[in-house]
Amino acid sequence: MRALVHGGGPVNNLVVLVCLESPHAFWHLSGEHVKTLRTAFPSVHFRIATDDTITEYLPDAQVYFGWRFQPEWFRLASSLAWIASPAAGTDHLPIAGAQVAGVTVTRSYGFHGRPMAEHAMGLVLGFSRGLFTSSRLQRTQQWWKDDLAEEFFDLAGATMAIVGCGSIGTRLSHVARTFGMQVIGVRHKPPVTDPDGTTWMCTDDILQAVGHADVVVDLLPATDSTRRFFDREVFADFKPGSLFVNLGRASTVDQTALLEALDAGRLRGAALDVTDPRPLPMSHPLRWHPRVVLSPKSATFSRTYMDDAVAFFADNLGRYLAEEPLNGMVTAPTAPTSATGG
Amino acid sequence: MRALVHGGGPVNNLVVLVCLESPHAFWHLSGEHVKTLRTAFPSVHFRIATDDTITEYLPDAQVYFGWRFQPEWFRLASSLAWIASPAAGTDHLPIAGAQVAGVTVTRSYGFHGRPMAEHAMGLVLGFSRGLFTSSRLQRTQQWWKDDLAEEFFDLAGATMAIVGCGSIGTRLSHVARTFGMQVIGVRHKPPVTDPDGTTWMCTDDILQAVGHADVVVDLLPATDSTRRFFDREVFADFKPGSLFVNLGRASTVDQTALLEALDAGRLRGAALDVTDPRPLPMSHPLRWHPRVVLSPKSATFSRTYMDDAVAFFADNLGRYLAEEPLNGMVTAPTAPTSATGG
Repeated sequence: MRALVHGGGPVNNLVVLVCLESPHAFWHLSGEHVKTLRTAFPSVHFRIATDDTITEYLPDAQVYFGWRFQPEWFRLASSLAWIASPAAGTDHLPIAGAQVAGVTVTRSYGFHGRPMAEHAMGLVLGFSRGLFTSSRLQRTQQWWKDDLAEEFFDLAGATMAIVGCGSIGTRLSHVARTFGMQVIGVRHKPPVTDPDGTTWMCTDDILQAVGHADVVVDLLPATDSTRRFFDREVFADFKPGSLFVNLGRASTVDQTALLEALDAGRLRGAALDVTDPRPLPMSHPLRWHPRVVLSPKSATFSRTYMDDAVAFFADNLGRYLAEEPLNGMVTAPTAPTSATGG
Repeated sequence: MRALVHGGGPVNNLVVLVCLESPHAFWHLSGEHVKTLRTAFPSVHFRIATDDTITEYLPDAQVYFGWRFQPEWFRLASSLAWIASPAAGTDHLPIAGAQVAGVTVTRSYGFHGRPMAEHAMGLVLGFSRGLFTSSRLQRTQQWWKDDLAEEFFDLAGATMAIVGCGSIGTRLSHVARTFGMQVIGVRHKPPVTDPDGTTWMCTDDILQAVGHADVVVDLLPATDSTRRFFDREVFADFKPGSLFVNLGRASTVDQTALLEALDAGRLRGAALDVTDPRPLPMSHPLRWHPRVVLSPKSATFSRTYMDDAVAFFADNLGRYLAEEPLNGMVTAPTAPTSATGG
């Protein structure tokens, strides 16, 4: 976190409303976080609200730092200029309403990649080493070495396609390449060069990318252009025996087409951190498919999440006070968007 | 594989007996492998035996390259000078008998680390991200996010102790550090310096090492000095909530002490690629413990295993013909041994 003390400047008597509640400690603002912010910005008035008291505090707030923002809150928040979210995705925020109200929205980035790369590699290795199968067969079969000898594949020499390859995908690419994997980064506008070793492709060439990949990781954000991006046509071009991993958004996948690809044997398996609906009904076939592993939207779980989110916000608040451009400015879904993750 | 053609030299008319059979293709000698060897060494007589015909071929063989060697075969193999094993461990080979017979034994190394690092990280991430739990709860609970929020831990910033840290452990250390882990390499004689970032400790200081580690990976070989190395005293000094992973040899672990440490809540979990006996009886508590994951000695599974083993042997055969020192010379268990893996 920047150690600078911001004493005054162009924005004086700034009121920052913070509402960061969660049943999970690592997503909850602690007293230490509040102390850190107040120490770093002594001239700023930080108001700490709960989900129950937030509407009382909204009228005075110029800056809001929180998980949620209801569209009807704009009426109350007449002084609001900036909504800062600790999340990477923004599809749960009222972007269009913010544009109408002239309120800036920022997302957070740079610290989701670490836990998400751990989660993605755990799911990939769980399939590639047959470990999910093994943990089941240890209770039902006398010896299951032959089963695993059939099922496993080497990560070294295999290819991973990361679709929606932003800052999170870049971190995942680095880890995957340490295991000796080839990585294809797929995004709307690929960078011209990457000295780090990732091969880049455009989302328009998705059929070519999935045709080469042993593992396809979906990190696409939820936008109009990514809705059901993975449909019957795309799954039909997957390399036979490949693995599909979705740590992005459920809306980017046609789940019926996914189940068909699994049942047709085209896909080796699927690992899904997001589903539609969430949670799935107990009887849903994705819960019971022998080659599907689900996690409960836990890919970003990290014990240091709020530490990192507060540090990102403090850096941005320093920029705000210094009238510098903010990091993580959000493009509204109504404007042209790029199919990149991050 | 070295492309050199060895036409003659000091060892002429050499007879090399090869017996590499397995129900798994990746551990079985293929026609391509034989062709590769014969092309590289046109003056060498390669005899390819099966488990059934091997005794017929033994009398002529000066070199034997194979998975197994029965102690009674020494009587038949009067010309034998060298036993080359494609395995990393040598506890299944008659080392003492070889010493008496004046036969050199070599092990293989350098290519087990890649699949074993994949296997180890898959097991570690399966626990650290709660994925084994998740794959079970997806079928029994409506929503299990809270369960995983309790269970998970970050690899970044956590410490892994690799006990018996030879060439396999060095590969694992590299991968673990890419995830942001601190690594303590433990071996009988630690290297003086390691510019690569591993912290080294001596096996005599094992209690200190396990006391610092969130994950302990056992890669010890089976020797007299490593028998029940992980006993009640060592498990008692594990950091509370740590994870134990054994990809080495079952003889290095007191399984009763391991179960006690699990039931006492000292260990978060255990992942075992080796058990005693193998396989465990269906009723054995390690099969049923909710925080134990077993794999069927599959840590070295790799589709390129035999390619790599043949390349290692060909390199060594070139050294043999050139009268250079062989790689992977084995110290007999009766001589002082070092508790290092590899």
